[in-house]
Amino acid sequence: MGDANKKGKPQPLDPLRPEEISQAAGIVRESNRGKKIFYRAISLVEPPKKDLVKFLDSEHGGNRDAVHPERQARVQAYVAKTLHEMIVNLDTATVASTTPLPGRHSFIDTDFMAQVAAACLADENIQREISALKLPEGATVVVEPWAYATDGMKDMKDRWTMAWFYMRLSDNPDANYYAYPLDICAEVSNSLEVVKIYRLPSGEQDKLSDEGKEFDRRKIHSNSEYHPDFVQERRTTTKPYHVSQPEGPSFSIEENHVSWEKWTLRVGFNYREGMTLHDIRFEGRSLFHRLSLAEMFVPHGDPRCPYPRKAAFDLGNDGAGINANNLKLGCDCLGYIKYFDGWLSTSSGEPLKMPNVDGSIFYEVRATGIMSTAPIDLDTKVPWGTIVAPGVLAPYHQHIFCLRMDAAIDGPQNSLVVEESHPIPFGGDTDTYNPFGVGYTTTSQVIEKETGLDLDFNTNKTFKIINENVTNSTTGTSVGFKLLPHYSQLLLAQPNSWHGKRARYTSHAVWVTRYHDDELFPAGRFTMQSTGDDGIGSWIEQRKDGDSSSVRNEDIVVWHTFGSTHNPRIEDWPVMPCEKMMVGLKPVNFFQGNPALDVQISTQEKNRSVLVHGAGCEN
Amino acid sequence: MGDANKKGKPQPLDPLRPEEISQAAGIVRESNRGKKIFYRAISLVEPPKKDLVKFLDSEHGGNRDAVHPERQARVQAYVAKTLHEMIVNLDTATVASTTPLPGRHSFIDTDFMAQVAAACLADENIQREISALKLPEGATVVVEPWAYATDGMKDMKDRWTMAWFYMRLSDNPDANYYAYPLDICAEVSNSLEVVKIYRLPSGEQDKLSDEGKEFDRRKIHSNSEYHPDFVQERRTTTKPYHVSQPEGPSFSIEENHVSWEKWTLRVGFNYREGMTLHDIRFEGRSLFHRLSLAEMFVPHGDPRCPYPRKAAFDLGNDGAGINANNLKLGCDCLGYIKYFDGWLSTSSGEPLKMPNVDGSIFYEVRATGIMSTAPIDLDTKVPWGTIVAPGVLAPYHQHIFCLRMDAAIDGPQNSLVVEESHPIPFGGDTDTYNPFGVGYTTTSQVIEKETGLDLDFNTNKTFKIINENVTNSTTGTSVGFKLLPHYSQLLLAQPNSWHGKRARYTSHAVWVTRYHDDELFPAGRFTMQSTGDDGIGSWIEQRKDGDSSSVRNEDIVVWHTFGSTHNPRIEDWPVMPCEKMMVGLKPVNFFQGNPALDVQISTQEKNRSVLVHGAGCEN
Repeated sequence: MGDANKKGKPQPLDPLRPEEISQAAGIVRESNRGKKIFYRAISLVEPPKKDLVKFLDSEHGGNRDAVHPERQARVQAYVAKTLHEMIVNLDTATVASTTPLPGRHSFIDTDFMAQVAAACLADENIQREISALKLPEGATVVVEPWAYATDGMKDMKDRWTMAWFYMRLSDNPDANYYAYPLDICAEVSNSLEVVKIYRLPSGEQDKLSDEGKEFDRRKIHSNSEYHPDFVQERRTTTKPYHVSQPEGPSFSIEENHVSWEKWTLRVGFNYREGMTLHDIRFEGRSLFHRLSLAEMFVPHGDPRCPYPRKAAFDLGNDGAGINANNLKLGCDCLGYIKYFDGWLSTSSGEPLKMPNVDGSIFYEVRATGIMSTAPIDLDTKVPWGTIVAPGVLAPYHQHIFCLRMDAAIDGPQNSLVVEESHPIPFGGDTDTYNPFGVGYTTTSQVIEKETGLDLDFNTNKTFKIINENVTNSTTGTSVGFKLLPHYSQLLLAQPNSWHGKRARYTSHAVWVTRYHDDELFPAGRFTMQSTGDDGIGSWIEQRKDGDSSSVRNEDIVVWHTFGSTHNPRIEDWPVMPCEKMMVGLKPVNFFQGNPALDVQISTQEKNRSVLVHGAGCEN
Repeated sequence: MGDANKKGKPQPLDPLRPEEISQAAGIVRESNRGKKIFYRAISLVEPPKKDLVKFLDSEHGGNRDAVHPERQARVQAYVAKTLHEMIVNLDTATVASTTPLPGRHSFIDTDFMAQVAAACLADENIQREISALKLPEGATVVVEPWAYATDGMKDMKDRWTMAWFYMRLSDNPDANYYAYPLDICAEVSNSLEVVKIYRLPSGEQDKLSDEGKEFDRRKIHSNSEYHPDFVQERRTTTKPYHVSQPEGPSFSIEENHVSWEKWTLRVGFNYREGMTLHDIRFEGRSLFHRLSLAEMFVPHGDPRCPYPRKAAFDLGNDGAGINANNLKLGCDCLGYIKYFDGWLSTSSGEPLKMPNVDGSIFYEVRATGIMSTAPIDLDTKVPWGTIVAPGVLAPYHQHIFCLRMDAAIDGPQNSLVVEESHPIPFGGDTDTYNPFGVGYTTTSQVIEKETGLDLDFNTNKTFKIINENVTNSTTGTSVGFKLLPHYSQLLLAQPNSWHGKRARYTSHAVWVTRYHDDELFPAGRFTMQSTGDDGIGSWIEQRKDGDSSSVRNEDIVVWHTFGSTHNPRIEDWPVMPCEKMMVGLKPVNFFQGNPALDVQISTQEKNRSVLVHGAGCEN
């Protein structure tokens, strides 16, 4: 975001600047003098929508002196061991509100997790267990702590952590320790006490065994490494691929404002959602007020205790912004690249969001990484995982995302329509005129109340966000955008399981709710150890009998739940090739014709390529 | 395919060379001396699979003197007005067989279609109808003939054609005449007689009117053009985008043989399927014997007579090879490009098939083009189409493709497995061990007999082609590839309509059949005016009680039916932005790990890009 000194007043959607973060922290420190404060997150409070829309309308109207809404920061911090949330007004330099949140938890604290790992390794009982495993010489034990929520076995107000154990057989810290999952795990309290040690099951319906089992040397193998230090023989057949744009990129960027051909939008960034897109317009016409990947739940499908505790809200618990990778030039993207740095983690978001030149928006999610593994005895199979190396089980699991679409198609008042294509009954009647049996029509239903809905490609079920107040003068129908969904299985855990209750957004593929300023996260704001009393299912339940459940011609938010049931292949090991999931938003009778008709015809003079003739090449 | 003089004996899968086409035509001419021969198609007869596989195995074994199967050409020609098919042995220069095909028709004959158009314009009754329309001054009438099959109103042994009428308001032959569909159409016989003139319906449940209606001048408009001659104002914001590969491409090509990293395959080309892929291997291991886009059916959904006649088999009737566009450098693809020229039409295939670097194959179909339009009165709506310009109806229609996958996963004997992911019932029993309600398992069913199957993302239904004779030593499961299908609605026409009978392949998304040399086309070889007695449904029906219906551990073919229900948007007018459909084939426990692990790490040194800082740029 360039040099802060050069900048004027921040636009209301600009993420907090470094000096604002310091200011917010200072105001909180000042107002809590004498108390120990442990900061967890300091981020922008996006202005209330009514104020923001007023500002944006004024800004688009060319008013450079538009009245800025109050600039506020949300500070999450432990004050005397209880999580507090403080809203800080940066304009007046005051704390606007303080909310203690006993029993709630902020996102995962990596410092704390490192303490959990250290506590495990220092624990005498764990040392005894490790020694019983009789690990090979030179082995290093690696502890990986995971936050976990209640599985019904315990009341959990405090933070609880599961520690999973692995082993590294090389001095190199980049050796893939997931190749050696060990047979033990431990439950660790908020005060870093190792409360319970589990031996992991090693076969189907295994009860946890009472005795430690020696590490089976036959599990030692050599082909689970992926780090460059270990993969010696690399193919030499891949030739370099250069992209150049001699006249520069077609987009231009001013701080967080992006102009690209006829598109304009603002890019935001926060620790939880990573990149967010705001105020998306095409030729000045409003399309979406805000687009974001709002949650991702990753439950594992192994039913054996304690594996059901492997279930993470990757955004709510971990934070997409905090965990965003640094993408590198020449590595991840080619051409003219603009990476937006976030001041919280100097990183850009993993999901790629690209407005496309034909007036559509595609949101591509790429799943990759290393699978979390579990131990399994040699010559054993279980029905909840794939054996990817000797003694290494890659468990079945799901990745369930939620894309939040705060729609503003030609203005804030929108409706959701469900359209289906159905055959007309065979016959020559007036009502069902289909004498040749080949006719079909569409049915359209405008959704009246907040609800969850499901996909059905068999009826070509299509979800359109329309503005019933604006009619396309040619087609005679309301202007709209349609969702191109990603078809995928929803949550496999039982609806009345803790997973089902905590992640109710995973029970339907499409949701529509009335807009509320605080409803950004479909599994609720506090997902760590949540018990399911928050999120999209609860909001709808609470409002269902009132007027505010109406979503027709209102300010609405549409949510799309999608993902993958990942029953691993060995080809996903040791590191998974990208699995792409694509969600699109396409105009439907929004324009007066193909909006890309005026794009220049691409020619060899302009976009040069090289022809291959047999083995030789020429221009 | 380079200079024929330089080449040796053709590989058995090489398309016919120009001199072979001439030779085949000459042999047929010679053996039919004195008869009038009208050639329709001359193409390679791919060798019987048993001979071909023997050759390929020998070739891959390094035997450069492998015995070539007999080289044969299929000649389709009218001999004395009846279609004949002659198999010509090019090695012995003899006609091996001659089959008269009375009542069958070859693909569409553009010369004949031009004669139909001319006959219409010369017909007095049509001239009278046109004159009754009182067209604007300077208008040119354009006739577009379409082949059509029986709709039950007539017995159709001979070729019948529907002629649809449009008007051009400019001298420029590239003016978009679909902007002015006229109210009339005509039925033309094989002997070029205009047998019947229809006035087209103009409203819902319209009966055909008796009187010609004057052309409504209010339909004249100016924004339906897309040709460069007409679109004057083009945006200037799109900057050039250059791709270069300074060390050349990573693939190499020798005649029709492609090597790309660890992949090898052969490219074929014929007038009907366009591009075909053969003998696809990865590190020498066999994956697929043949992959091709085998059919595409395009039925329109408007039930009003005579619109049900708008229904084309775009491959069987028209030919993907014949109608392939010339892709151009700098226009359609960027980078090092090899276009394969076909000797029938000097063109490459429209579908893009790209083996991907991670061991998967993706087959991308892009739908684009200009929609066939119908007239509609102003201020009228019908439920089977979208009004895209004044008086212009873009009718609802479907595009239903079929991808043929002749599988050879680690050898010819394969099986199809249907896997689903299901929750385990909540409980602690031994049989249904799921005490926390979060567990799930997969069910697997090996398909035993030829059949059609359907998709279901709700159960994560996955179709795997496996080789039950080869077990992955790590996972302990059969090696395989899985289909990543394109989820789409199937045929909306009634199953007992003529559309339903002629295109039975559109009734299921996945089919599995036993391999037979002649079964390449899912709606049958002769789709022109077919009555449904051929194709995938019939083959299965005929074999259902015999041993040859078994598909487990046999030489099998898997077919995927997919497409789109295209209820037009105005954004598809006047020319449609590409709609992408992607079908993938991904290894499942075929390798011993991620096969792309040895790809060099991409770096800025190798694949150079440019960083954008604010408005400026740097390397």
